[in-house]
Amino acid sequence: MAYSSGNHAQAVAYAARAAGVPATIVIDESAPALKIEATRALGADVRVVPLDRREAAAKELAVELGASLIPPFDHPDVIAGQGTIGLEIAEDLPSVAVVLVPISGGGLASGIGVAVKALCPGAAVFGVEPELAADARDSLRAGELVRWPAEQRVQTSADGLRAEPSELTFAHLRTVLDGILTVSEAEIQSTVGLLARRARLVAEPSGAVAPAAYLHRASELPAGPTVAVVSGGNIDPALFDQILRDTPPGG
Amino acid sequence: MAYSSGNHAQAVAYAARAAGVPATIVIDESAPALKIEATRALGADVRVVPLDRREAAAKELAVELGASLIPPFDHPDVIAGQGTIGLEIAEDLPSVAVVLVPISGGGLASGIGVAVKALCPGAAVFGVEPELAADARDSLRAGELVRWPAEQRVQTSADGLRAEPSELTFAHLRTVLDGILTVSEAEIQSTVGLLARRARLVAEPSGAVAPAAYLHRASELPAGPTVAVVSGGNIDPALFDQILRDTPPGG
Repeated sequence: MAYSSGNHAQAVAYAARAAGVPATIVIDESAPALKIEATRALGADVRVVPLDRREAAAKELAVELGASLIPPFDHPDVIAGQGTIGLEIAEDLPSVAVVLVPISGGGLASGIGVAVKALCPGAAVFGVEPELAADARDSLRAGELVRWPAEQRVQTSADGLRAEPSELTFAHLRTVLDGILTVSEAEIQSTVGLLARRARLVAEPSGAVAPAAYLHRASELPAGPTVAVVSGGNIDPALFDQILRDTPPGG
Repeated sequence: MAYSSGNHAQAVAYAARAAGVPATIVIDESAPALKIEATRALGADVRVVPLDRREAAAKELAVELGASLIPPFDHPDVIAGQGTIGLEIAEDLPSVAVVLVPISGGGLASGIGVAVKALCPGAAVFGVEPELAADARDSLRAGELVRWPAEQRVQTSADGLRAEPSELTFAHLRTVLDGILTVSEAEIQSTVGLLARRARLVAEPSGAVAPAAYLHRASELPAGPTVAVVSGGNIDPALFDQILRDTPPGG
């Protein structure tokens, strides 16, 4: 079983189905209906709880069910798995100068950062957060975990980036990141439209923050070959339609 | 200047703007508004004519304006340029067994077919057409160009696949193709949805026929590593929205 904002949920449900074992997934009530439906469509038993109850509810349920809990980021194996994206970056673009990675719980950035720093020590690795959920940036500045209330974090449209780093991921982030940039909601949404129109990629808001930082924070980034990790394509069709209609053709 | 169903139009307009020269593009009136707007947004002077007048109108206008005409497929240089996709396929997947390519005027399939057969002689190359615009399939069967009336060809939602092969492209297709498959409108549309949901790719109907054939004509294809060329992502937002809503989550 697992807890998740919806993307890890689908990954665990998919893997469980492939392995022929049951999956129970705790998703927070602020997740888009699309992610909940998609997780159910993969055969998982989905339980919906408030965002700040997610992890605790999953842990209680794991004990009750005698199930193995696969956390979305707070585990060395999960971080290592997410780090394989860093291995791919190093293999595909050994001359990479800058890597931009979205930050929620920080597992993706931890894993990618470790891999990139090991294989391409000259490359800078930046995390990217929505301005409305910039708790990891504040934590990095303060040198310790700074908590943002859940009711504040749910305000970003990047619903996959509302989690907070753990002690484990924060220890990684302090070591491997060169900094954290933030992007506005308008920048996130226009980047979703631009990715669809120009790169022909379906990205959800959470998946668009890294290219949004590339487009709108260039002055804060080193020059050179840049990789922006687009992680998450589960966008609500109504939101996607609205963004596509608002994005000018050729824009 | 150029004539086009809308995708070549944007390519020529883009290249002309980059080169700092004016572009006049003749597009047929059955093209989606999106493609016409996008071509205008790239700075081109767009003239809209009926489908069966497109090529003739462009030729007359080229004489009148003293402009160079860049045809969408009926020229060795254009075919060679489109064939670079075949070079990429051979480089990225030398073990390729099957290549599926959409067919309209046949330039893309001619170029890719020549490149693939030269570099991967064991690979089979199949063209794919909508059932509603299967003139190239009929031509291949008859051994000579078979014409379908324009009012018949405009019925497919794959608006980029309504052109007909020329003598030049047909000579290539007879040499390099192992066959032509057709797909239904329902198969095309469901594949647009599946590409968006599962591959996170924005494809227009014309761009989805090759993966549609892979999904729905497997019994007519050799086994082995298969490449389906997705060519065209200029989809009308309203149609895309409708298809996404009709495609089940996880489907």
